[in-house]
Amino acid sequence: MTKLRTLIESNTFQRFIIAVIVINAITLGLETSSAAMARFGGVLMALDRIALAIFVIEIALKLIAYRHRFFCSGWNVFDFSIVAITLAPTGEGMAVLRALRILRALRLVSVVPSMRKVVNALLRAIPGMTSVLTLLLLVFYVSSVMSTKLFGAAFPEWFGSIGASFYTLFQVMTLESWSMGIVRPVMEVHPQAWIFFILFILLTTFAVLNLFIAIVVDAMTVVEHKEGEETRDLVTVDHGELMREMRALRAEIAALRARSTAD
Amino acid sequence: MTKLRTLIESNTFQRFIIAVIVINAITLGLETSSAAMARFGGVLMALDRIALAIFVIEIALKLIAYRHRFFCSGWNVFDFSIVAITLAPTGEGMAVLRALRILRALRLVSVVPSMRKVVNALLRAIPGMTSVLTLLLLVFYVSSVMSTKLFGAAFPEWFGSIGASFYTLFQVMTLESWSMGIVRPVMEVHPQAWIFFILFILLTTFAVLNLFIAIVVDAMTVVEHKEGEETRDLVTVDHGELMREMRALRAEIAALRARSTAD
Amino acid sequence: MTKLRTLIESNTFQRFIIAVIVINAITLGLETSSAAMARFGGVLMALDRIALAIFVIEIALKLIAYRHRFFCSGWNVFDFSIVAITLAPTGEGMAVLRALRILRALRLVSVVPSMRKVVNALLRAIPGMTSVLTLLLLVFYVSSVMSTKLFGAAFPEWFGSIGASFYTLFQVMTLESWSMGIVRPVMEVHPQAWIFFILFILLTTFAVLNLFIAIVVDAMTVVEHKEGEETRDLVTVDHGELMREMRALRAEIAALRARSTAD
Amino acid sequence: MTKLRTLIESNTFQRFIIAVIVINAITLGLETSSAAMARFGGVLMALDRIALAIFVIEIALKLIAYRHRFFCSGWNVFDFSIVAITLAPTGEGMAVLRALRILRALRLVSVVPSMRKVVNALLRAIPGMTSVLTLLLLVFYVSSVMSTKLFGAAFPEWFGSIGASFYTLFQVMTLESWSMGIVRPVMEVHPQAWIFFILFILLTTFAVLNLFIAIVVDAMTVVEHKEGEETRDLVTVDHGELMREMRALRAEIAALRARSTAD
Repeated sequence: MTKLRTLIESNTFQRFIIAVIVINAITLGLETSSAAMARFGGVLMALDRIALAIFVIEIALKLIAYRHRFFCSGWNVFDFSIVAITLAPTGEGMAVLRALRILRALRLVSVVPSMRKVVNALLRAIPGMTSVLTLLLLVFYVSSVMSTKLFGAAFPEWFGSIGASFYTLFQVMTLESWSMGIVRPVMEVHPQAWIFFILFILLTTFAVLNLFIAIVVDAMTVVEHKEGEETRDLVTVDHGELMREMRALRAEIAALRARSTAD
Repeated sequence: MTKLRTLIESNTFQRFIIAVIVINAITLGLETSSAAMARFGGVLMALDRIALAIFVIEIALKLIAYRHRFFCSGWNVFDFSIVAITLAPTGEGMAVLRALRILRALRLVSVVPSMRKVVNALLRAIPGMTSVLTLLLLVFYVSSVMSTKLFGAAFPEWFGSIGASFYTLFQVMTLESWSMGIVRPVMEVHPQAWIFFILFILLTTFAVLNLFIAIVVDAMTVVEHKEGEETRDLVTVDHGELMREMRALRAEIAALRARSTAD
Repeated sequence: MTKLRTLIESNTFQRFIIAVIVINAITLGLETSSAAMARFGGVLMALDRIALAIFVIEIALKLIAYRHRFFCSGWNVFDFSIVAITLAPTGEGMAVLRALRILRALRLVSVVPSMRKVVNALLRAIPGMTSVLTLLLLVFYVSSVMSTKLFGAAFPEWFGSIGASFYTLFQVMTLESWSMGIVRPVMEVHPQAWIFFILFILLTTFAVLNLFIAIVVDAMTVVEHKEGEETRDLVTVDHGELMREMRALRAEIAALRARSTAD
Repeated sequence: MTKLRTLIESNTFQRFIIAVIVINAITLGLETSSAAMARFGGVLMALDRIALAIFVIEIALKLIAYRHRFFCSGWNVFDFSIVAITLAPTGEGMAVLRALRILRALRLVSVVPSMRKVVNALLRAIPGMTSVLTLLLLVFYVSSVMSTKLFGAAFPEWFGSIGASFYTLFQVMTLESWSMGIVRPVMEVHPQAWIFFILFILLTTFAVLNLFIAIVVDAMTVVEHKEGEETRDLVTVDHGELMREMRALRAEIAALRARSTAD
């Protein structure tokens, strides 16, 4: 068991897996070209199956080596899900499942340590955003229901259901064609519609902006604190040295006084 | 009266209100679906009326418990207005008023403490923005009047009145279709129009950018100050300790000197 | 002369001017409404002439009071230019000059002190941006010449001259319809055009982003420095106090030693 | 050789080169105007050839003066490549190569020291971005392959090949016409396409935002550290002074004690 783990955790093994991921990503890319498929179709399909087999074996080995603790790491769960998802379509399957095979290339993130770090850093920014995100979701839900009731009848394609409204409002939030594409046509039927949309844009833009600011401030607070700590450490060390010196001085004077009393 | 207040402020009561808000938000959402209405129309309408009744009773209880002080809290005013607005359309009413009922879901913000905090944080960012916002409003007013005079005759739909110009300039500020949709057509009639619009875009974008920066800097200043205060507190405490030690030393020497004089 | 100055600088006089500016801004706004013009056309025109007369007198008084020093203040030059520009069209004039009269409302900025502060703060951000702005201008010039040569023949409306290219590239930089509106049509004639435009977008976006960052960093540096100075001031004061105490101690010991020698 | 270097590095020589670059940029700009070409075509072409000759001589002189060390400086390589690229089309050449001649104006960046600084500052921001950029590239590759497989058959113009998908996804990331132009048409064939595109937008926008934040935080860390260092330097100097004083005091007391013992 320990042998298996040292094998799995060895650099050679990891580099081999990285190489397989990269080659598989390339073959999957080439599969999109009909010219390449006409020429090397068989080879590409074979390489894809070999790559998948290697991934399955890799995960099986890890499962044997770590057992239930395998699922303690989020990255292992990530790897497992990607391989599991892409296992189905190698037979015949649907087009969508076949297209998901390229997700295997994302395994690079879990295998290359420097990439893991970046993603971890990105994920760390999320908790600070949850409260504003919840608020944003609430605003979206309220606005979706309102716009469905107000504009749904006249513009079923854009506001026919809560789902459609949600999508359209997301588009409006990204400011894509919000006026020429959506609001101006709506205003021809409901002339006061601009009130709803401009309020929505101001509200969501302000919320998104604050999301962003929260991340900057969080990141800066860490830097700030590190720098402040460094200064405070210096002050504390210096203070300690001074106090020691002071006490030595006091001891000296006490000795002097003892002597002078002794006189 | 005190009993009533303890009831209103109890966790059970607040959780009950939150549950009612959530259920009401869901029923209002389902009302937008004609399939759901055909099946459970009566139930949904009944649930909506029950929820409204509960909200009215809740606010009535609070009014009895807190009397005029009820209106001292901005959140209470918020709750009161939302329920008041949505009270009218339960009869038959206009479509717009009926659509406003979903605003009740926003009561979640005033009832859930963590949501209140987020909104309070967002609102706190506003005072730092007022001066730039005033300037922006002035620029908008001046630009609206100018564009109405210059382009109103040729493009009544976009610049026919100050209101229309205001809306169009807001669209231009968000950069939505500003060139292909608005300025290029305008330039076919007024070839020099780009001067006006490009100046407007540069000015407003720069102002909005500074709005944004003001918020970041405000937020950072707080962090910065907290960190600085921590360092200064440490310095002050250390200094106090040193001074106390120093004074003890001095007292000791004074005593020594007194003794040596006494000799 | 001193009397004139105290009059001009008095709060009453300044409030009167602010009132005139606001009233004039409103009358100029009303002039855009044909309904208002049909009813009060004569009154509005009269009010506008009175406002202009007051502004001319105000500036004349200031010129008498401050003479050549009048032009030392940027705000005075600003006021003077605005009134000078808007002086012409009171006769008959062109439509554009008539539209420029509303610029007088911008005089609010120079008259209200809090508005002046905001504008001064915005202007202070500019020097830190000049170097990046120069670079951006160079990139724009080079790209304009290139795009004129490459795409001018096929798309004279967008890239027919350096000026047209400049405008189109500004539009591309704001990302407005850059792809569907400009680059995709261009790519039908010049299939490799995406290289030029994507490089241009990446370059200019990166430069604008750095403009923005420069302002944030500049603003933060000021805050940072103020906070750092406060800490350093405290450290210096504390240090001074300690040194004084130390010297007193030393003096005491010197006295003790002198006495002990005297014994 | 040393003489040659002092010549090349002299202010007069550099100013002359700057002048040539500016004049050449202007003549190349004028070449785009057919009116200017009709009138001064010959002069403009002659000036261009003279400028090119000067640049070639300048680089030849530098090559003689610095030999292989010439290529140690990135800016020299930049100058060399620009002149080399634009050398070809003076004969007859292709239109694209002729258009590249204006790149010579970019030599201003390498010749004017203040411009060099700005570009160096911009380039310094890049290393901190590489990890997120790599991740972004991976997301783009995976998304390109997926969208080609999913939507390529129905929308060959947008998603026909990996290249086309890459370009379309870049457009979607810039939010240009992403919904009205791309996703809504795609959703008419593949109703679930919004899942793919909204995930893509959220992911890439979040990544780009973090790119941006990384630069701000990097820049601020430098400022922060400088300020912190200043405080710590002050603390260290003050501490040194106090310690010296303390030691002097101790020496004094030691002397006192020695004397009192001697008594």
